[in-house]
Order: sequence, then structure tokens, then C-alpha cells
Amino acid sequence: MGPENRDVIVSEVGPRDGLQSIKRIMPTQTKIAWIKALAASGLSEIEVGSFVSPKLLPQMADCADLVQAAIEIPDLTVLALVPNLRGAEAAFAARTRKITMPVSASQAHSKANINRTVEEAVKDVARVNRLRHEQPDDYRPGIEVGISTAFGCTMEGAISEDWVIRLAGMLADAGADTIGLSDTTGYGNPAQVKRLFKRLKSEVGEKAGGAHFHNTRGQGLGNVVAALEVGVTTFDSSQAGLGGCPYAPGATGNIVTEDLVFMLEAMGLKTGIDIDKLIAARPIILSGLPGEALYGHVQDAGLPKGFHYA
Amino acid sequence: MGPENRDVIVSEVGPRDGLQSIKRIMPTQTKIAWIKALAASGLSEIEVGSFVSPKLLPQMADCADLVQAAIEIPDLTVLALVPNLRGAEAAFAARTRKITMPVSASQAHSKANINRTVEEAVKDVARVNRLRHEQPDDYRPGIEVGISTAFGCTMEGAISEDWVIRLAGMLADAGADTIGLSDTTGYGNPAQVKRLFKRLKSEVGEKAGGAHFHNTRGQGLGNVVAALEVGVTTFDSSQAGLGGCPYAPGATGNIVTEDLVFMLEAMGLKTGIDIDKLIAARPIILSGLPGEALYGHVQDAGLPKGFHYA
Repeated sequence: MGPENRDVIVSEVGPRDGLQSIKRIMPTQTKIAWIKALAASGLSEIEVGSFVSPKLLPQMADCADLVQAAIEIPDLTVLALVPNLRGAEAAFAARTRKITMPVSASQAHSKANINRTVEEAVKDVARVNRLRHEQPDDYRPGIEVGISTAFGCTMEGAISEDWVIRLAGMLADAGADTIGLSDTTGYGNPAQVKRLFKRLKSEVGEKAGGAHFHNTRGQGLGNVVAALEVGVTTFDSSQAGLGGCPYAPGATGNIVTEDLVFMLEAMGLKTGIDIDKLIAARPIILSGLPGEALYGHVQDAGLPKGFHYA
Repeated sequence: MGPENRDVIVSEVGPRDGLQSIKRIMPTQTKIAWIKALAASGLSEIEVGSFVSPKLLPQMADCADLVQAAIEIPDLTVLALVPNLRGAEAAFAARTRKITMPVSASQAHSKANINRTVEEAVKDVARVNRLRHEQPDDYRPGIEVGISTAFGCTMEGAISEDWVIRLAGMLADAGADTIGLSDTTGYGNPAQVKRLFKRLKSEVGEKAGGAHFHNTRGQGLGNVVAALEVGVTTFDSSQAGLGGCPYAPGATGNIVTEDLVFMLEAMGLKTGIDIDKLIAARPIILSGLPGEALYGHVQDAGLPKGFHYA
């Protein structure tokens, strides 16, 4: 299904955010098999890895190989996370279709996560944007920025909403194509989600991006419902709820792709994803990471009797 | 906190819906200690048990004792479930403040659950309403009805929304004070929740009652967000997510009171409940049911740094 026929884009981040906090390395061939199975279920966007130092995150060392394999899959937008200019050079060399840069709203989290102030991180986005314009004519990668800790920080506590919105404006000026909001720490609540995404749209218009929610306090799908109310149409999630951020204590747990897709389709929103094929991809995770904890309510409970896709 | 200062009423159903599907009997004294601790956290409504045949549900055999103990707690609305006229007689003899009668929208579920057709169950509500008016002048119990399987049935699949709304009208005519909607099976989705509660309000006006959601497919808090959008202000939930319906296979799992209260308070909605005191009541469950599985994200993750109550 082409993007024009989808009401909502579900962007799978399991191979990046999901695996990032897991120490045991999933073999590259297993990752590729998993990504192919995810794409075959109808997912149109997959974040396959992170162009970070392999010393810092050995799990992400094969990111270029993953991009190379994934860009062969028809109609798939292949994303990779890029923390800085060096990462962008590697991502562009691999011809990654779209990169996603995390810029934290919290100074403390920014220092801990990428060893930079927020302002330095914004400058990095501008540098990466310039680098993009130096690429060959047949390669124009997208740049999305996710404002991490946008809903609160385990180190700083509450984050000023005015500041988050001002930061979004700075990132738009720096050349990001879209600016999304990430609840890195699972602090977000539905009222805050509605306020912030509404203001984001007012501030940056068409550059307003998607939502990246964690389910740390069980609020993930509630926050999705709130975001849908104010017109958000792109959501990150992780198959089997793998994931979290190793630098934010207690911040484990992306929302579960299977439960998200079920909710959206049940609401009558087209995702283009076949939930049976999606669920069938779960065992591949275990083939590469035996005994790993997999989450998800729909997997356990099964689909409702007579359930129809949107 | 009086009801006039609460934005949302959280109605705790753990001692009834939570325990109902658990075979091991929690001792009566433990139940009373648990109910007292729940009330001390600020909960203003607790469903303490069910006036059913003790042969059918031995766990509920001490319901009259629980009502007797609970009605001594100041400012607490003591509810009990009543499946039929005989149950109402027992509930009224115990001077239960409010009874809740389940009437299923699904004929198959109604037969399995209370061995009656839906139409017979509606007649029972009318009989119970007449019995109420025969009570002494100083005792005027409330009668709420929850339409179970309102969002779908594990036996019948989809349930006609027109029928659910028509049934609500019949129940209002039969004398119910309020008519709520129950997602007994965890089939509900946020779009359906908004549609049905909007129509419920149109049909029965001020008699429109609260929402009883299960988290079977992870949609519980998402459905609460949707219900809040259309003005629902009373929600059932179960401490530690105990519960379910033994007659609806796979239908385990009320929404978790702790996670619900956290969400509402984080949204700025006053519940009158102290979440720390609420969490402190959890070990009482284990003192009566050693090793029982307790659920809840907020318990595991802790409150956000610097979290403020609404």
C-alpha cells in the first residue's frame, strides 16, 4: 500500500531503539531476516540501526550493512539514527533514505546521551543539512529530528513546554525536514501530548513530525489516542515492545507495534499493515536472541472474533 | 475530598471483579483490610463483592460481611454487584449504598453469565427497582446498570451499536439510575468508545453512566482517553490489574487503578486519590493471596521526577 492510501504511518524502530538497550548482539543475518519480515507485513518505514561509534554501542556496528540490505526492499523507507556529523557522513555514504537525529530538550540528557549541549546539537543539524546539499544529485536524503525528553527528563524532571516549542523552531531553521516529539522517559500524559503537538504544528507548520512514545508508565497508547486527536499521523513503535534508552534509567519500553496497529485498524484507520504477518515476524527476534522478553497484549489475547481490517 | 471537588470518579472494582476470577479465597479480614486501605488512599467508590450464589462463586460468599464493614467507612460509596432479584434482596438487607447490575448486550453472553435472555435481565432491573421503592424511608439505594459486552462478545463477535443504545434506553425506562458501558472482553477501541458514549448520552441524558474497560488487548487507557474526550467522568478499574470475567475466555484484566490514577492526575484531573497511599495498599493483596500476579507500570517504573498532583 502506497503512503497515499495510509491514514497513519507506523514507523518501526525495533531494530534500532529496541535492540539498542540489549547487550547480546543479534547476528546481522537475523536482523536482515527480521527487517525483511517486518517490511513484508506492510510496514513502510523501518529504522534499521544507528550510525554511532561501535565502541559505544557494539549492537549497532553493522548499521551500514543493514542499510545496504534494506534499501533493496521495494517501497520501504529505510531510516537510521545519526547522532552527529560523523554519523551523517557514514549514513550518507550508505545512501540511507532518511536519517533521524535526536536532539534532547534537556541539557542534562543531551550531555549524557551525545556529550553536547542542546545548542551544539542544533548546530550539528545545520551542519548535517549542509552536508546533505553536497550529496550527488540522485541522492537527497531526508532529515528528521526527534526532540527527546520533550515530555520530561529523569534527570531534570519537568521540561518547559515553551522551550520545547522554541527548540522546534530552531531545528526547523537549521534545516530539518520534520521535527517530532519523543517521550524518551515515559513521562508524557495525554493532555500534555495534545498541548505540545498542537503548539508544534503552530510553530513549524508542515514540518511538524511524528510521535515517539514509550510505555514506561503504561501511557503509550493513551498518548497515541491524544496525538491522533490533534492530527498526528506518524508513530514510532517497536515490535514486541523491545527497547528503551540506556542513558535514561527506568526508561525502557517503546510502545508495542502489534498493539498499536491493532488499535489503529480497529479504529478504522488504514495502516497498510497485515497484523497476522506482523505477529508472525516475532519468532525471528528469538532466533537471534534466545529467551529475550517479548511484550504485547494482542499477541497473548488474540484478535477479536470476526475482526476486520480498516 | 468530596465528590464535588473530583473531576473524575475512579471506582475500584478489585475486591469484586478482581477477585471474582481467582479461585483461592482471600480471607474476609484481609479483604476488609484491603478495602480500608483503598478507601484511605482517597477512593470514593469501591465495589466490595457480588451477591451471587456462594456455590457458584465461593470467593464472593462473604459479600454481606464486607458491605457491613465497608459502610462504616466515612464518605465511601459501597457498591456490590447484583445479578438478579434474589441478589438485590440480600444487597438491600445489608443496606448496600449502591448496587450494580450487569446486563449483557449479547444474548449468548447473557445466557452463559446469568442464564437469562437480555430481555429477562431488563425485566429483573424493573423488579429490583420496584423492590427498592419498598425499602424503609431512610434507605434509598442507588441502582446502576453496566451493559456488558457492549463493545463486542467473544461468542457473538461484533455487537450492533444500535442495539446497545436501544438497550440503554430500555434500562433507563426500567428504572436504572445510570447506565454504563462495559468492555467485558477487551474488544473496544477508542473510536468505538467515542461513538457509543456520545450516543449513550443522547439516548439517556443524565442517566449516562461510566466506563468499565478491560486491558485485554492493551487498549484500556487509550479507551479512557477517548471516553474523556466525550465527557465520561466515571471509570472502573482494579488495583494491580486483577480480574476479568470467568465466562468470557481470554477476557482477563481490568485496567490498573494505579496507572489510571497516574494518568488522570498527570493530565491535571483531580481524582482525590493519593497515589503513594494507593500503591502502599498492594501488599495487602499478597498477604491474602501469596504469590498472586500483580500488574501495573507505575508501580514498576516509579513516579516521574518532581511529579505533582493535579
